[in-house]
Amino acid sequence: MSNIDQVKEYLLGLQNQICNSVEKLDGDAQFERDAWQRADGGGGESRVLTNGKVFEQAGVGFSHVFGDKMPPSATKHRPDLAGESFQAVGVSLVFHPLNPYVPTTHANFRFFTAGEENPVWWFGGGFDLTPYYPFHDDVLHWHRTARAACKPFGDSLYAEYKDWCDTYFYLQHRDETRGIGGLFFDDVNAAGFDDSFAFLRSVGNAFLPAYQPIVESRVDHEYGDRQREFQLYRRGRYVEFNLIYDRGTLFGLQSGGRTESILMSLPPRVRWEYSWQPDANSPEAKLYDHYLRPRDWLGEQQ
Amino acid sequence: MSNIDQVKEYLLGLQNQICNSVEKLDGDAQFERDAWQRADGGGGESRVLTNGKVFEQAGVGFSHVFGDKMPPSATKHRPDLAGESFQAVGVSLVFHPLNPYVPTTHANFRFFTAGEENPVWWFGGGFDLTPYYPFHDDVLHWHRTARAACKPFGDSLYAEYKDWCDTYFYLQHRDETRGIGGLFFDDVNAAGFDDSFAFLRSVGNAFLPAYQPIVESRVDHEYGDRQREFQLYRRGRYVEFNLIYDRGTLFGLQSGGRTESILMSLPPRVRWEYSWQPDANSPEAKLYDHYLRPRDWLGEQQ
Repeated sequence: MSNIDQVKEYLLGLQNQICNSVEKLDGDAQFERDAWQRADGGGGESRVLTNGKVFEQAGVGFSHVFGDKMPPSATKHRPDLAGESFQAVGVSLVFHPLNPYVPTTHANFRFFTAGEENPVWWFGGGFDLTPYYPFHDDVLHWHRTARAACKPFGDSLYAEYKDWCDTYFYLQHRDETRGIGGLFFDDVNAAGFDDSFAFLRSVGNAFLPAYQPIVESRVDHEYGDRQREFQLYRRGRYVEFNLIYDRGTLFGLQSGGRTESILMSLPPRVRWEYSWQPDANSPEAKLYDHYLRPRDWLGEQQ
Repeated sequence: MSNIDQVKEYLLGLQNQICNSVEKLDGDAQFERDAWQRADGGGGESRVLTNGKVFEQAGVGFSHVFGDKMPPSATKHRPDLAGESFQAVGVSLVFHPLNPYVPTTHANFRFFTAGEENPVWWFGGGFDLTPYYPFHDDVLHWHRTARAACKPFGDSLYAEYKDWCDTYFYLQHRDETRGIGGLFFDDVNAAGFDDSFAFLRSVGNAFLPAYQPIVESRVDHEYGDRQREFQLYRRGRYVEFNLIYDRGTLFGLQSGGRTESILMSLPPRVRWEYSWQPDANSPEAKLYDHYLRPRDWLGEQQ
């Protein structure tokens, strides 16, 4: 099998596995499937679960797009690849739970290859967590699972990709991280195809073990209007990040991607409130004071 | 009085006048005032009314910022002005009514001057309307008022600035205009300061006569969950426009402007729904079919 076919097979399996687990976790709603075609080559399948018992919205998208010539916007940082043929395959997901004690999460796994003979290729991806009322044990579990997924591929990888995640998911105009981070990587190819692909699989396979226990332990936590309103307010930050900063979103929209599949990352309900600030020492203030800045959760730097 | 002082006096008066009228229209809530300073020179006053009877949120901001050296982002399109001192004064407003039959509106009036001897200066601004359930009479009234404000300054101005508005407030990724348009202009200086300033005042003074009668005639229109949900859904487009396309918003956030004052344009409550489409021949479909594309409302081109 070609490289792209191997990655595609893995990612289609991962999409299935994650959707099955989310349906089981939810216990009520099911994913609707939307297959789509890209005019210039390729297509994908978006799966969206809405108004579930656990998930207010969960989207898991697969895409495989290709063409004879890379779109100019794709070669901005790699002018050497201008005019080459390309293929890109990826899975991307965002889950917005109903209960404010269950964190929102996002993950992405992708492979890119350009040119025919001696193709240039790389892997990218990662996963990150956006809690509203964080539990410190959950944060440790999330980062330990991320670290364990990286460990077989190099002792420094977790720290490197954890830092990259903190830097990438940062809202400059709010001086806040989007959440408590996780892993973010791109341009992964130095170890050769087999090992790089094994690394992607290791991170991809770690997503459910990282997220599922957190959902299970927080989903029955009681909440009221106060927590729900705070969740809707903080979801505003998610919208701000995705529409102002997120390269995947902006590149997708600018390059004529399928708008509904790209924007299925946006939360179903959101609110903004002018100049809102949490009360000092409130549970809401704890999020701002302790969690919305880059931190060395696992004491790696000590 | 210097040019900037004259414009400042007018804009401060306009902010007062508009806020007074909005409070009267609302009949319940009042504006809160927030004065702010800019570290690099100048400041402003944001006024926000929330949870009114008529307006779910209304923000009217005044700002006067200046500095010895223009920020690099401000000189992108005018490299000849790099390094010059500058002053910018403006009023900007966005109103989000509660009743879905009352349109959202936005207006902006601004003056910019750069350099000391032989300063380069210009006016910019305009107003636009974003209905959810448009009434054709309202659309005609809005555009007729806009046309009348332009008329004394040139027969072609309305058509020119109406087209610019349609082009500017366009969501490429949705293939929709933001609303039914109005006026948008920039770099206005060809007629000299006195006439250009008179034009700005003419448009500024036309805003309330354009908007107020529309609010008054629609505010008692009965609505239910269906209309409210559609309004919240369409407000998502407003967020998408402001965060993806709006130059004022993006420039403000990138140049270290006051985040809360810039983002007071965002609607208080919003929702997104994956792949939602209006039913054929429904009142919601009418918005899409008849109003969300550039149209020659007043038959000017015939």
